[in-house]
Amino acid sequence: MDNLNKQVAFISELEKLKLVYRQNMVLGGVRQENSAEHSWHAAMMALLLQEHIPFKVDISKVVTMLLIHDIVEIETGDTWVFDTKARKEVEEKEDLAADKLFGMLPKSQHLEYLKIWREFEEGMTPDARFAKAMDVLNPLLGHIVTAPSRTNPMNIKSSQVREKKSFIKDLSPSLWELVEELIVQGVEKGVFLEN
Amino acid sequence: MDNLNKQVAFISELEKLKLVYRQNMVLGGVRQENSAEHSWHAAMMALLLQEHIPFKVDISKVVTMLLIHDIVEIETGDTWVFDTKARKEVEEKEDLAADKLFGMLPKSQHLEYLKIWREFEEGMTPDARFAKAMDVLNPLLGHIVTAPSRTNPMNIKSSQVREKKSFIKDLSPSLWELVEELIVQGVEKGVFLEN
Repeated sequence: MDNLNKQVAFISELEKLKLVYRQNMVLGGVRQENSAEHSWHAAMMALLLQEHIPFKVDISKVVTMLLIHDIVEIETGDTWVFDTKARKEVEEKEDLAADKLFGMLPKSQHLEYLKIWREFEEGMTPDARFAKAMDVLNPLLGHIVTAPSRTNPMNIKSSQVREKKSFIKDLSPSLWELVEELIVQGVEKGVFLEN
Repeated sequence: MDNLNKQVAFISELEKLKLVYRQNMVLGGVRQENSAEHSWHAAMMALLLQEHIPFKVDISKVVTMLLIHDIVEIETGDTWVFDTKARKEVEEKEDLAADKLFGMLPKSQHLEYLKIWREFEEGMTPDARFAKAMDVLNPLLGHIVTAPSRTNPMNIKSSQVREKKSFIKDLSPSLWELVEELIVQGVEKGVFLEN
């Protein structure tokens, strides 16, 4: 039961990710989206969009990456993608948080999940690149669907969005075409500035 | 782009699962848990608890089952597990909903996900039995963690909980031991009646 007790403590700790809120809203604008929902949605996207990646991925690992990628936010909170300074500062904290949180698990799982989480963070392998693409495509698509028309309180520019998602260009022509189309829709909807 | 357009429409539709609320609360009792978060959490449990199942499972399929198992609730809403009459009535509606929702996807994915969803619903294969165990263990564990002490407005009895989870007994001795322990904790906390 020793392994099970550790796993149950970790699973209970995961409740906290449901309280880490992101910039995006849910439909109807009733509340912000949280990182647990986002992780589910991004994992679903990976399952559904594999065919658009022109190289072979280990889809089971990609899904695992997306399910665990934000768990560190239980310790650090969510950092807005366009807040470059905060993103840089939080990286070391996230590494410590990953070791602390996965360290609640039995040793072999601790090492296994820390390794997968770091592979995702580094974003160098085919699996991590595909997972990162899903992680950033999810809020772009979600924003177009859920943001109320003509609301852009942070004055987000199309050029900022295009730059943040630009690594998708090298990954997949069809997904990049989707990014470009979503940016156009965002400008039309008035949730991104034109330039 | 035809496949991609269909997939994007389906992914956008999935936003609605974040608005399907369940009986369980999140930490601090600030709101009810929704089915997207629950799906994420149950998939995490499957990844973490595989070692407690005394037969081989296709973990990738089990995770997929748990990610998609509640998508039908976009059409039907969540039905409380202890409401036996409503559960029976909703089953046919869920089957139609699955066909409608997965039918938004390209043909091969439509058939693939409908098949996996039905395998889960029927609960006969090793993969489906393990996934079902995660689906019912998740709210039991979550309830012990998140429910405020001495609140049991629906007068849930330990015997009802034990009966609903009883299939876990045949599946895994250690997970059944966990169920028994959680029920004891629930009685001590005053969220389940003793008998």
